[in-house]
Amino acid sequence: MTEKDSNPSTDMFEAIKWNSQGLVPAIAQDANNKRVLMMAWMNRDALAASFEKGEAVYWSRSKQRLWHKGESSGHIQKIIDIRLDCDADTLLLMVEQIGGIACHTGRESCMYKQYSEQDGWVSVEPALKDPKEIY
Amino acid sequence: MTEKDSNPSTDMFEAIKWNSQGLVPAIAQDANNKRVLMMAWMNRDALAASFEKGEAVYWSRSKQRLWHKGESSGHIQKIIDIRLDCDADTLLLMVEQIGGIACHTGRESCMYKQYSEQDGWVSVEPALKDPKEIY
Repeated sequence: MTEKDSNPSTDMFEAIKWNSQGLVPAIAQDANNKRVLMMAWMNRDALAASFEKGEAVYWSRSKQRLWHKGESSGHIQKIIDIRLDCDADTLLLMVEQIGGIACHTGRESCMYKQYSEQDGWVSVEPALKDPKEIY
Repeated sequence: MTEKDSNPSTDMFEAIKWNSQGLVPAIAQDANNKRVLMMAWMNRDALAASFEKGEAVYWSRSKQRLWHKGESSGHIQKIIDIRLDCDADTLLLMVEQIGGIACHTGRESCMYKQYSEQDGWVSVEPALKDPKEIY
């Protein structure tokens, strides 16, 4: 029995090109309306936990701990599909976004700022919910 | 006249949280079918050039130079919209993907590998064109 046979899941991690901090970017995309919701980071434990739970678990660089997305807001991301890119250094998660809100600002997506020469980067999307009601 | 008035474009860069290498991840999404096509990196010059050309220009970390996407393949990405996320550390480009191929492997999207316990990360999408015909 080869090592691969005894522990096939090892391959999941070995194939990935983790950066010098042991992380890869993970893009979350809404599986229904196809909006890009956010980008966060995963380490090996986060990816393993995401597969295990079927819900997005990231590595919080600010808190330096695993971050089960939605743990405090309830805005869990149920994983429909996980993809790895050609270079093996970026993950794409197709998710069902519970509550329809991915952003801590109460917006559907974190990708809500657009540049205007006059005003700089400004929000072009409304908050669906007051963050005070979420946290 | 304030500094802002004299050079408003400065704000575009100042607002962004560049990483320690002066880069931010930039996700390219197909504006028509909404597929996530790829993720690459931008520095200030790449972002400025992208706005100026209306076409995606990235910073190639492997070649350490500006990379006008499609410069050799013809698979230019015409920019429809550029978004910055809540944390100001990720960009999203909505693009018209010329040729319908974003990936150097000849696939529509770079996000084509799916994990299976038996085979590891394997391609689940066909190449639309032989890379030899592209480059």
